[in-house]
Amino acid sequence: MESIRDAARREADHPQSQVVRFDADRPLRLDCGVSLSPLQIAYQTYGELNADRSNAIFVCHALTGDQHVANEHPVTGRAGWWTTLIGPGLPIDTTRYFVICSNVLGGCMGTTGPSSLNEATGRAWGIDFPLVTIPDIVRAQAMLVDHLGIDQLFAVIGGSMGGMQVLEWAASHSERVFAAMPIATTAKHSAQNIAFHEVGRQAVMADPDWSGGRYLDHGIVPRKGLAVARMAAHITYLSEPALQRKFGRELQDRERPTFTFDADFQIESYLRHQGSSFVERFDANSYLYCTRAMDYFDIAADHEGNLARAFQGTKTRFCVISFSSDWLFPTADSRAVVKALNAAAANVSFVEVSSDKGHDAFLLDEPEFFATARGFLAGAARARGLTEASEG
Amino acid sequence: MESIRDAARREADHPQSQVVRFDADRPLRLDCGVSLSPLQIAYQTYGELNADRSNAIFVCHALTGDQHVANEHPVTGRAGWWTTLIGPGLPIDTTRYFVICSNVLGGCMGTTGPSSLNEATGRAWGIDFPLVTIPDIVRAQAMLVDHLGIDQLFAVIGGSMGGMQVLEWAASHSERVFAAMPIATTAKHSAQNIAFHEVGRQAVMADPDWSGGRYLDHGIVPRKGLAVARMAAHITYLSEPALQRKFGRELQDRERPTFTFDADFQIESYLRHQGSSFVERFDANSYLYCTRAMDYFDIAADHEGNLARAFQGTKTRFCVISFSSDWLFPTADSRAVVKALNAAAANVSFVEVSSDKGHDAFLLDEPEFFATARGFLAGAARARGLTEASEG
Repeated sequence: MESIRDAARREADHPQSQVVRFDADRPLRLDCGVSLSPLQIAYQTYGELNADRSNAIFVCHALTGDQHVANEHPVTGRAGWWTTLIGPGLPIDTTRYFVICSNVLGGCMGTTGPSSLNEATGRAWGIDFPLVTIPDIVRAQAMLVDHLGIDQLFAVIGGSMGGMQVLEWAASHSERVFAAMPIATTAKHSAQNIAFHEVGRQAVMADPDWSGGRYLDHGIVPRKGLAVARMAAHITYLSEPALQRKFGRELQDRERPTFTFDADFQIESYLRHQGSSFVERFDANSYLYCTRAMDYFDIAADHEGNLARAFQGTKTRFCVISFSSDWLFPTADSRAVVKALNAAAANVSFVEVSSDKGHDAFLLDEPEFFATARGFLAGAARARGLTEASEG
Repeated sequence: MESIRDAARREADHPQSQVVRFDADRPLRLDCGVSLSPLQIAYQTYGELNADRSNAIFVCHALTGDQHVANEHPVTGRAGWWTTLIGPGLPIDTTRYFVICSNVLGGCMGTTGPSSLNEATGRAWGIDFPLVTIPDIVRAQAMLVDHLGIDQLFAVIGGSMGGMQVLEWAASHSERVFAAMPIATTAKHSAQNIAFHEVGRQAVMADPDWSGGRYLDHGIVPRKGLAVARMAAHITYLSEPALQRKFGRELQDRERPTFTFDADFQIESYLRHQGSSFVERFDANSYLYCTRAMDYFDIAADHEGNLARAFQGTKTRFCVISFSSDWLFPTADSRAVVKALNAAAANVSFVEVSSDKGHDAFLLDEPEFFATARGFLAGAARARGLTEASEG
């Protein structure tokens, strides 16, 4: 069984992230009814907050992302997941904007989640951690933004599950969001997407090493189950044409099939690698909690089934972006958001980026996407009265 | 460990199927190089073979199907899987045609496969069973057709993996196939489809009860792993619109989410049921072998990458059918077959049936599909000189 000290060390073991802790006097009231306390949030920032605190961009990460958006990842040693978009001179220009990204509530990179210490028991929370929702995740982010002394964010930006958070920010904290860029996302998770998530959860839970969710007590990890979950999910992140182009039916390091269950095909080897490397950096229970948060997401449900009502009277400027080959969060989902925003008389622009790269396109080199983001932010900055960095 | 007697009983335990056994004097030479012997084939027939043996239709079943195409299933007690299409007065009219369907090589319903007795060891073959290919499967079927004294089949018909067998019959046993109807299938398995199969295989193999493929020796079954594999596959059989229409985000037997990992959503409950019921009727190793056979399928690869060459000089009449919302074997795959057949100057008709039911449409009530099958078979019967049953 993991000791309290081990668990505490694990939590503290994110030296590259700043951490804020909210104690019993500032509990987070969750949608499930539980008041969560203490709450720790691990986050990264890039650039400088300007004098009137008007240049902050909050970046929301996706299901298996984390706060290491534009710096080397402390576990994998790889570049941050959005270094294509965020940095000096890039569309989210860190010489101009103050960029914040925090690990989501329920995550496993320093923010309170199922692998955190449950102070009531002296063990990791595990499956006793309360279920969290996208609104809960955003409320925790708002506490961080309060802590940083920022009333209104210049922009909230994110893709996939990050895009859900953007929509939730805009719906429930409208006055705090000057501009919003929901990317490759949806206002409600579809039956097919719930289905894929359920397969992933069942794969994790089918692994005996999951131990009823208490694996950390036993110093083990449901590696195989989590790897299978990741493999299944990874297929949904790519388009069929991209898989065809990248792998087709090519064999790996052999001239003919082996007539075994070895990874004869490159696509098999690639998927196995995706599964096994994911396990090194992600907590299985966090995967369960975050997928569940996405499944529960349905903004309209909280507004009598009317999505437009969620955005009624909003002053936020929106830029909705989808990718043509994304079949996980297809353009139709983004169009539904745009339609609702139009019905709410919101200021909204919409771009469907032509790409054959599937859902993952939002993380890849997509010039049309970058140009759209740059242009939208430049326009919003002018409207917000932000001066150019070069003029500052 | 299962006794030889138990294994033998299990093999014999298909009283509703006829069985033919080929002994050491008739080995089946497999693509992997192994000569398989003995070989047992379990099959069903419907209707009567006519005097000149010209009215036989061979039906090829899909990945998780079996020979019980038009009779009550001996394990599940449910109706045969193609009772919509096959029976008296139906498009495949059993008052007119003699219908044969055999369990595929590698299957688990009486034909030799990994759960069969390996006479060399006295145990079930398990993972020692040689890998089989679609051409191997079809060669075994041809042995059965020989056994039945039929030189030329009037038609070979099948969907999905069954459609692969149809194409293989037409490519490699052309003179024995008067008419061919490959449905919802492809001439080569795509990277995406290999990927989904690999996820399923990894799910099975990740289950400790799989026991390195030797679970039958221990009297256990990798239930959880096989259920996860089935759940993942099942999503691919349905279209997103069909999932949306059937389930959407509806909760099952509760008014609000439970904030647990219970099956709150109907789609979750449905998928779990699909997984657990599949385990009752299917062997996990057979699932590995049959998915592998599909992955290896690539007719053109055996003809210098030129699919048309596989059908050069064919006299077979083809009717290629796809379904508009099938994303597992999309219409583009069928079009590639049609294009090759046209290049080979074959007699081919092609219908894309409009349906929102996804890949599974070929098993469902699709009037346009039925009308197409009926019309094609009627025309082929005239060309073959088969008299109407009502005229006979």
